[in-house]
Amino acid sequence: MKVIIIGGVAAGTKAAAKLKREDRSAQVTILTKSEDISYAGCGLPYYVGDVIKERKQLIVNTPQSFAKLTGADVHTLTEVISIDRAAKEVTAVDLTTKEETRYSYDKLIIATGASPIRPRVEGAELKNVFYMRTPQDAQDLRDAAASGTIRRAVVAGGGFIGLEVAENLASQGIKVSVIDMAEHIMPGFDPEMAEFVENHLADEGIMPFTNTKLEAILGTEKVEKVQTSRKAMKADAAVLCLGIRPNTQFLDGSGIELTQGGTVLVNEYMQTNDADIYALGDCACVTNRITGAPAWSPMGSSANIEGRLAATGLAGEGKPYPGVLGTGIVKLPGLNAGRTGLTESAARDAGFDPVTVTCVVDDKAHYYPDASYFIIKLIADKKTERFLGIQCLGKGAVDKIIDIAVMALSMKAVLSDLENLDFAYAPPFSTAIHPLEHAVNILINKISGRLESITPSEFAAGAAEGYRVIDASMSPSIEGVDFLDLANVNGVQPQYAADDKLLLVCAKGKRAYMLQNRLKYYGYTNTKVLEGGTTFNGAEF
Amino acid sequence: MKVIIIGGVAAGTKAAAKLKREDRSAQVTILTKSEDISYAGCGLPYYVGDVIKERKQLIVNTPQSFAKLTGADVHTLTEVISIDRAAKEVTAVDLTTKEETRYSYDKLIIATGASPIRPRVEGAELKNVFYMRTPQDAQDLRDAAASGTIRRAVVAGGGFIGLEVAENLASQGIKVSVIDMAEHIMPGFDPEMAEFVENHLADEGIMPFTNTKLEAILGTEKVEKVQTSRKAMKADAAVLCLGIRPNTQFLDGSGIELTQGGTVLVNEYMQTNDADIYALGDCACVTNRITGAPAWSPMGSSANIEGRLAATGLAGEGKPYPGVLGTGIVKLPGLNAGRTGLTESAARDAGFDPVTVTCVVDDKAHYYPDASYFIIKLIADKKTERFLGIQCLGKGAVDKIIDIAVMALSMKAVLSDLENLDFAYAPPFSTAIHPLEHAVNILINKISGRLESITPSEFAAGAAEGYRVIDASMSPSIEGVDFLDLANVNGVQPQYAADDKLLLVCAKGKRAYMLQNRLKYYGYTNTKVLEGGTTFNGAEF
Repeated sequence: MKVIIIGGVAAGTKAAAKLKREDRSAQVTILTKSEDISYAGCGLPYYVGDVIKERKQLIVNTPQSFAKLTGADVHTLTEVISIDRAAKEVTAVDLTTKEETRYSYDKLIIATGASPIRPRVEGAELKNVFYMRTPQDAQDLRDAAASGTIRRAVVAGGGFIGLEVAENLASQGIKVSVIDMAEHIMPGFDPEMAEFVENHLADEGIMPFTNTKLEAILGTEKVEKVQTSRKAMKADAAVLCLGIRPNTQFLDGSGIELTQGGTVLVNEYMQTNDADIYALGDCACVTNRITGAPAWSPMGSSANIEGRLAATGLAGEGKPYPGVLGTGIVKLPGLNAGRTGLTESAARDAGFDPVTVTCVVDDKAHYYPDASYFIIKLIADKKTERFLGIQCLGKGAVDKIIDIAVMALSMKAVLSDLENLDFAYAPPFSTAIHPLEHAVNILINKISGRLESITPSEFAAGAAEGYRVIDASMSPSIEGVDFLDLANVNGVQPQYAADDKLLLVCAKGKRAYMLQNRLKYYGYTNTKVLEGGTTFNGAEF
Repeated sequence: MKVIIIGGVAAGTKAAAKLKREDRSAQVTILTKSEDISYAGCGLPYYVGDVIKERKQLIVNTPQSFAKLTGADVHTLTEVISIDRAAKEVTAVDLTTKEETRYSYDKLIIATGASPIRPRVEGAELKNVFYMRTPQDAQDLRDAAASGTIRRAVVAGGGFIGLEVAENLASQGIKVSVIDMAEHIMPGFDPEMAEFVENHLADEGIMPFTNTKLEAILGTEKVEKVQTSRKAMKADAAVLCLGIRPNTQFLDGSGIELTQGGTVLVNEYMQTNDADIYALGDCACVTNRITGAPAWSPMGSSANIEGRLAATGLAGEGKPYPGVLGTGIVKLPGLNAGRTGLTESAARDAGFDPVTVTCVVDDKAHYYPDASYFIIKLIADKKTERFLGIQCLGKGAVDKIIDIAVMALSMKAVLSDLENLDFAYAPPFSTAIHPLEHAVNILINKISGRLESITPSEFAAGAAEGYRVIDASMSPSIEGVDFLDLANVNGVQPQYAADDKLLLVCAKGKRAYMLQNRLKYYGYTNTKVLEGGTTFNGAEF
């Protein structure tokens, strides 16, 4: 079996190595237009920030060592320009000699990845305009940062890569702004969660500007200003993290089916509409595991899974790929942010009737030194109580919360499956009632009517208009509003009528919930708890 | 409804608070013989080690604040001495006045917890003999440690509490030994995993002595030596963490059914054989979620869950408790250790046919600064491939691995449910192929015959006798054995016959697996990979 793999970063090398282990008799050839293969794309921002000290740490294998280790042939600087499906051949150009060669295949794997969007704006060719996709991109930005000539940088694009670059520049004393043309940074998060992160970043000195489009980069030789739809921003560097486009232009006319966005459509065995041609990684379009809809998951993790699956498939033991959940996590200064499954709006779009809760829960025993909190937003279907998604922010182990949720979502858990679980507890790691469990309990309380609340996004949209705010904290902490000490509420509170609209607010939401419970017992019928309390909705108080 | 709750630490206070929220009309009275209620038992060792700075941090609520917050009555220093089920009354002694009072109940909750085993050995009454169960216990040991008079301490008992105490004494410069009469410390771990921890502790300066029984404590006024079945050990303090016994002696003659160990048998609604009497927390015997067998889970986390369940049950909305998994986690110096589900031997005892793998996998991107590794032992049923249990050791996020497994076990996952999941990945958090996923893939490879291996415990039992050891590392690293560089194995190796017994060993197991794969292709029929490589089986090489 002759297998040609186009592309040699994550998906391509994984498929090659696994296939050679499954069937060493397979003739596997990687054709890649780059000089490097098998590099750690996800590590690039950390090389910029000197968290990773040496460039060679980013390179998992050289083409030579990879070939020796696996038995696959590797041709670097070799760009495939077309596919002849009838003849089962690809045509590739040697980028050094410009010679064209035809390679025949029995099976073909397209793992060409994606390239950064390079906007056609004035000044995009200036010195100190950077991208973040290859080790050389990272080297260039690292060198510029280390040279001491960059005092201010604008990162265009508030996705994970843009934010990681922002953190890694800021950590070196560079004043960083992040602009994004969308309403919020952090695609894949619901707006109010993204907004919390925006406020946090501003507090940390990384200024986010949303609804702000990159219009031009100004300067004579090098970047001097970044012109946006709002204003011009002084900058010594512009890092363009505006997203990526799949490298599939060479498939034009091949008859291989692409999505509108240019990714290659594959079935659950990673096969394109030509069963002898597979597509993997950043250039492929897979499936959302919850909705079954097409999903693009340009992540190193998906690429590896898909490479492995395609290889076992080619070797005759294919297993279907149930698809992705849209999981993502990012480390920001002083805050980690993760998500998996459907957002509230995605759940609605997919035909679910989402019910959500946003809560603030301790991340470990409150008395343990580095204890902090998680902000958890849970999304479930109201009727079936099927668990649909989670977003989590916090200083601590956000990855843990997300990964438990990944396991639950993959098993199609309903909320009651997440109740009363025997999670690991010791004070350095968690709370006696696990943070995720806690959040689930709150959502179940909400569905059962025990908790009647206003979500942060409902609150921001004005749902609390006409409500009288009551501070339910331990001691008065919200200026200019009534304070009620839960410990002293043992009957009707004469200052309020039974049907007064009362919005109960405390730091995190717990005391407000307990106060609501108490007030309901004494006949109050119109109380609401503000989910997330002042911790999440802080800007409003 | 009059509800009496006997005991006021985790389970009792949780049940009281939740019940009063569910039904404020319930008259809830806590009777507890202690002075404190609602204290953080799991935090005590950290108060000894000054990780927690102030005693008041250990106290979640005072009796007064708890009563005001919840509306429950709290009687401290009030010991229940008997139950009259016919009259539905308990008799309690006021420990201050010695007066006896009878309290009537409609429903009774037994949440009396457990007490440390106090061995009847010579010298147990000496000064500087400590226990670790109450805030006062912790205060006493903390004060002694802070006084500078303790240079050497012996901790008797190598369970989690004993090891946490050992860590917290060692961190203050005290030379600590841990003795345990069992073959290994860390009950609930398979022997080879416990042994790895023992070696690690010894490297860290905490000397574990197993198969070593406490025989006497010697000294004139205070501890001078600890006499064990092996030798006498010089010590200025002895901390006795020999386990706990449920506080159920007062139930003698009550007709309430106890287990042989003295815990109260309950059904899935936490009811004893008397449907009006519940038992919760450390004094109760619940169910193993996997086997359905009785299980004792004296953990703060279980206590909270059980308290909550009993309260909702009493309020009329009871849900069944599916039981515990035997989850546990402990922070040790430079190593975290966690487990959940069945050990290999417990799986065998429960009638499963366990297949296991022990592997060493990266815990985050290898190039990220604090990257380390997890040692993961997975246990599954060979025939059904049902996932049964996990043990994990590592410097990093062991709690994450365990909690994902808890979710999977609770959903009755089979191994294929754990494949190809979209876990959270970014270099500061994880690896592109998630560590747990990696371990699952290895176990699936083993079951399918792709990997033929010897487990560390098989190896220790002599399974590799007659095998020739081959070093499969990147460069020769095991003295006195053959070295084979995978990169150069492209055909038959004339120095070995096809049926030579070859044991392939590398640092973690991965290269040995790849070498096995290669050698099998070239006709070698008797190769085995040593699971865990030299990293886990280090002492042997």
